[in-house]
Amino acid sequence: MTIYDISEKAGVSIATVSRVLNGSSRVSEKTRQKVLAVMQQAGYTPNVFARGLGLNTMKIIGILCADSSDLYLAKAIYYVEKELKARGYGSILNCTGYDRERKAAAMEMLLSKKVDGILLLGSNFVYEKEEANRYILEASARVPVLVLNAALQAPNVYSVLTDDLRSMEEAARFLLEKGIRDILYFYNSESFSGRRKLEGFRKAMREAGVPEKEIRLQFYRGSHEDIHAMTGKLREIYEGGFEFRGLIAADDVLALAAVKYARERGLRIPEDLAVIGYNNSMLVNCCEPELSSIDNHLESMCQHLAATLMGVLEGRQMPREVYFSGELVKRGTTP
Amino acid sequence: MTIYDISEKAGVSIATVSRVLNGSSRVSEKTRQKVLAVMQQAGYTPNVFARGLGLNTMKIIGILCADSSDLYLAKAIYYVEKELKARGYGSILNCTGYDRERKAAAMEMLLSKKVDGILLLGSNFVYEKEEANRYILEASARVPVLVLNAALQAPNVYSVLTDDLRSMEEAARFLLEKGIRDILYFYNSESFSGRRKLEGFRKAMREAGVPEKEIRLQFYRGSHEDIHAMTGKLREIYEGGFEFRGLIAADDVLALAAVKYARERGLRIPEDLAVIGYNNSMLVNCCEPELSSIDNHLESMCQHLAATLMGVLEGRQMPREVYFSGELVKRGTTP
Repeated sequence: MTIYDISEKAGVSIATVSRVLNGSSRVSEKTRQKVLAVMQQAGYTPNVFARGLGLNTMKIIGILCADSSDLYLAKAIYYVEKELKARGYGSILNCTGYDRERKAAAMEMLLSKKVDGILLLGSNFVYEKEEANRYILEASARVPVLVLNAALQAPNVYSVLTDDLRSMEEAARFLLEKGIRDILYFYNSESFSGRRKLEGFRKAMREAGVPEKEIRLQFYRGSHEDIHAMTGKLREIYEGGFEFRGLIAADDVLALAAVKYARERGLRIPEDLAVIGYNNSMLVNCCEPELSSIDNHLESMCQHLAATLMGVLEGRQMPREVYFSGELVKRGTTP
Repeated sequence: MTIYDISEKAGVSIATVSRVLNGSSRVSEKTRQKVLAVMQQAGYTPNVFARGLGLNTMKIIGILCADSSDLYLAKAIYYVEKELKARGYGSILNCTGYDRERKAAAMEMLLSKKVDGILLLGSNFVYEKEEANRYILEASARVPVLVLNAALQAPNVYSVLTDDLRSMEEAARFLLEKGIRDILYFYNSESFSGRRKLEGFRKAMREAGVPEKEIRLQFYRGSHEDIHAMTGKLREIYEGGFEFRGLIAADDVLALAAVKYARERGLRIPEDLAVIGYNNSMLVNCCEPELSSIDNHLESMCQHLAATLMGVLEGRQMPREVYFSGELVKRGTTP
């Protein structure tokens, strides 16, 4: 029995059935009774039926992300919406871009649509300067705000994070233990999460006795889809005199570019160049050899994010900050 | 001068500035005047300022897509939101999944949020059976509905499509003209667009005199991220006795799997196996050699989609159906 069958048997539109399930006042009592009768005949209670469609409570969660065409964020959206749906919640999403004012404006727009909570997907929503986070605090005065991958201490704000520092530290330590010390750290974000990853890399290098000035970092400032620009950047570094034997990337796409660079230069992987990516995304299977990469358990994090939000909305005491550990998944690009 | 500066100078919250810009009634007249005065002192009119933030009209467009983690749909969302933003429109998105009832429920949810128009991204929203499209017609009775990649003849419904039939026909003809006749068509969707692609492939093969029963089609029914499952399917076909010399894929990820399959079997590309993908996505640069692929000009299509919606909302007469032609971008996987 589907919403279509019910609309047909009751002789009303699907929208009307939806409205009955939502308890909307835009339906006459007569029509409401007719629809409910058809459901009852079919052995359904409206609640069971509506819950299946995520219409039961009509609670709607607002989601903000900077850019849905980023592989990691796209996955996060997918998992979070799936979890919310499974719990009978709807969602509306706005992709804000990386500009802070747009983020604040989008936040206000979602609130004007009467959402019951806000999810911020991605650490770029939290800024280093405290006053830049005012737009989050203003929102959290009205509804609970949950942040993926960044911590913000404030009432009614909850964070679910991956332990980027430790994951990156372990990645670097893994290469160091294999005797690889000429490691390039290749990154493309200075967000909260980006800074934690960088810190983890530096920590491992320092602890292995690599002098501060020999720790090699390369920032990539370009489109996250332009793989040729990334390999170009790596060529520049090599031509500048640094023949790196290991590369740790803050994102799989940068690691994939390193595999491409190695092929161009005729380097063997992992013998001449070992490569570790980050996120364990679908890209790890796209190149040859396949990428070793940090899996940060995004699906589990998103499950927890949704569960935390439910808990808060139900008035339960929920943890303010939860860190998930990541792990290195070894494939063909590491020894 | 930013929204932050104004909120600071006026001594009110950012949310309050937003509300003034939106003409919200939740602001006292005194506060409103104070905020407007600060703006005027800074040489801004509220309209110019608000337009920059996409708040001017507060027109909000509802967007539905099945799955934001699909590379093609993620790009479409990105382009469409960018266009809407540039025109001063906000947007709210819901990812529905592929179930028809969920799509109908999500549509109703967006309408309940008082959106001014609906964009359906992806041909999977339009079904072959006419009555299955009722949920679209019910929505279009209330607001304009625009569909990307599927045609639906109905009042207040507008379609922007890529000419999938012709693009796929040209891809097949290209290989046939190179003397390759043992072509496998590898696809993963039977949506409106999927059926048009298939039709184009068959048309080219028939016209080249390939008997109907020798036209080889393989459907892949699995995760759109599981590249190993795709190569497994190709191995099965080879083991089943069909040694294909060409492969045309309905999506780049399937073509990428073919490149991987060729490597496993020690086939040279393009000499032993020529491969053509579809969408010209970021995946084309991920493998070696790089993928030849059909570029269907998604960004232009999304621009047109947004422009059409603006036209409709402004009461102008707009074309009901616009087809964009695609083209084969040749890289290393074709002779």
